[in-house]
Amino acid sequence: MDGVELCGNEVAGARFIRGLEGGRFLFSFVMSYTRTCEIPGITIAGSSPETMKFTPPADAEFIRCGRCESVDAVPVTPDGKPTPALLTRVALNSADIQCLAISAGSAVSPKIPFVQTSLPPGGNIAQESGMSISDLMNAVRYGRLIGETLAPLVDCLVIGESIPGGTTTAQAVMRGLDINARSSSSMPENPVSLKNRVTDAALARLKPGDDLGKVAELTDPMIPFVAGMLSSASKACKVMLAGGTQMAAVLAVANLIGFDTGRVAVGTTRYIVEDTYANLLEAVDETANLPILVADPGMEDSSVEGLRAFSHGFAKEGAGAGGCIIAAALKTGDSPAALRGAVEREYARIFSGR
Amino acid sequence: MDGVELCGNEVAGARFIRGLEGGRFLFSFVMSYTRTCEIPGITIAGSSPETMKFTPPADAEFIRCGRCESVDAVPVTPDGKPTPALLTRVALNSADIQCLAISAGSAVSPKIPFVQTSLPPGGNIAQESGMSISDLMNAVRYGRLIGETLAPLVDCLVIGESIPGGTTTAQAVMRGLDINARSSSSMPENPVSLKNRVTDAALARLKPGDDLGKVAELTDPMIPFVAGMLSSASKACKVMLAGGTQMAAVLAVANLIGFDTGRVAVGTTRYIVEDTYANLLEAVDETANLPILVADPGMEDSSVEGLRAFSHGFAKEGAGAGGCIIAAALKTGDSPAALRGAVEREYARIFSGR
Repeated sequence: MDGVELCGNEVAGARFIRGLEGGRFLFSFVMSYTRTCEIPGITIAGSSPETMKFTPPADAEFIRCGRCESVDAVPVTPDGKPTPALLTRVALNSADIQCLAISAGSAVSPKIPFVQTSLPPGGNIAQESGMSISDLMNAVRYGRLIGETLAPLVDCLVIGESIPGGTTTAQAVMRGLDINARSSSSMPENPVSLKNRVTDAALARLKPGDDLGKVAELTDPMIPFVAGMLSSASKACKVMLAGGTQMAAVLAVANLIGFDTGRVAVGTTRYIVEDTYANLLEAVDETANLPILVADPGMEDSSVEGLRAFSHGFAKEGAGAGGCIIAAALKTGDSPAALRGAVEREYARIFSGR
Repeated sequence: MDGVELCGNEVAGARFIRGLEGGRFLFSFVMSYTRTCEIPGITIAGSSPETMKFTPPADAEFIRCGRCESVDAVPVTPDGKPTPALLTRVALNSADIQCLAISAGSAVSPKIPFVQTSLPPGGNIAQESGMSISDLMNAVRYGRLIGETLAPLVDCLVIGESIPGGTTTAQAVMRGLDINARSSSSMPENPVSLKNRVTDAALARLKPGDDLGKVAELTDPMIPFVAGMLSSASKACKVMLAGGTQMAAVLAVANLIGFDTGRVAVGTTRYIVEDTYANLLEAVDETANLPILVADPGMEDSSVEGLRAFSHGFAKEGAGAGGCIIAAALKTGDSPAALRGAVEREYARIFSGR
């Protein structure tokens, strides 16, 4: 459809899209934390370790209520570049799609109702295990339980994430499982060599053993939790993994525990797919031959400089923005380009402080 | 239909039932706590203040997983009378209805994914305010938010509760709002005079003021939270309040904040309606002219003595059992009596420790 491109497995993609117009969608927004994000320079998702912890709950509050309760203001950089949750919120509202926030090891709880799982935050994989084996198994189990609960209620479950530093753990998981992975980043200048050093340090600790043991060493809590959700939900409804390379890592772990490939697609933005360094398409293809739906939010045509920044590689994905834009388009039949005016109005509202 | 009687507003009841066969249901199980339950002799929902805190999460775990994680065993009295959550679990499973546990001030979190709201437990209304005004307003707000999230996903949202001591706070709220209320109890010998003394002490503290201020003084956290859920959810889907007199108190508070009466019914068991002391039908009629659906679980015919106890006035309602039995019957078209065999098998499974 106009503004949504179909890549990867196109036959399965056409089947995925069919029958969703007017269907029931739910966006589940998984908040998480890995101390890996505290490595200086590895992410811009928050200006300091203390504020980074608040990014996932602040995004959840903003998506749900249009304002943040856990922080003073909607996350925007000093020069006016907004959180991608702005796109998520506008897309969901345009199509009357609800958001359910879920904590899978978030360091801070949002001040709105959310699904709690009692998973602890993940470790800094440069120097310690990402998770204990028992926490990993709990993450998969809790993910399966919540996937089982939600899937029968919807035609399509959209799953997005917010975890500072999460592209580094995703890269580590994929390399640990022998998938050729280079991750994207929320920064225009992807700190590639730093991410590689962190990943190398984590991989160097691996001992021979089963794949889930390797994953525990390398992962953040979001990845096995979402793999568990995918595993159970894909038995009962269509599942769209909304994100970039992190969702390829989810698929790699989901391969280990099993899922129904016939009901799954990845949904992302054009900015991720065009990222010359990231290789989302290949990574997804290596893990599972799935359709990838690519939304063009058309922000390069915006009159607002802070919004044009999305198309220049700033925060090019996150908070499930791409998947939610696609979900809104699939539900309403409207092109993503139709959202631009609403995005600009919402941006103006944030800055006027209303 | 067979085994489900329609009382109260029968015209609205017929409209409520229509079109639900094969529909999408969700059971939301609201766990809460009031220190009122710590008054000796006021409830049997747990044998001591310490174990009472675990009753709501243990029921949630049992309904979802068939076993309890927070306590050693499924809640059963020493002489073999099981928690009404047994009926809830079997009814939901028979009709493939999912359960989502929600904490509205529960003192203990379940060891399964659940919706967290960060409301604190309620005070002992014999000697202190049930809630602060700001917690009361948060309870309503959080309830509205989660009702808004869930309602578009379902045709019928069933809301049940588990809160030790909750019939006493319900009675206090109704008396504070000038509704002629006598509550039922989980005990065959309803500790009427003790409940009245507690209620009198709470009412004696009331100062002239608005009704929500009175409610804050007298309530537990479950009542305003469920009133908030009802308020928003009834705009978008049918809502069945699964319970006894506590749901009449919810309706009294919902009257203050507004709800769509055209989409609401109370669902309960025959054992509550026949309770000579309780006056559920009149209390509901005084607050809102709603339909009351009454399930006959038929346990008096059971070969298991612990199950016949339900029909003798023990734990005659709770954990949304009546509403879930009705929901299962409405979804599948089968009579509640068809559940008895499965209830007996589940009872045997619990005792065999599998």
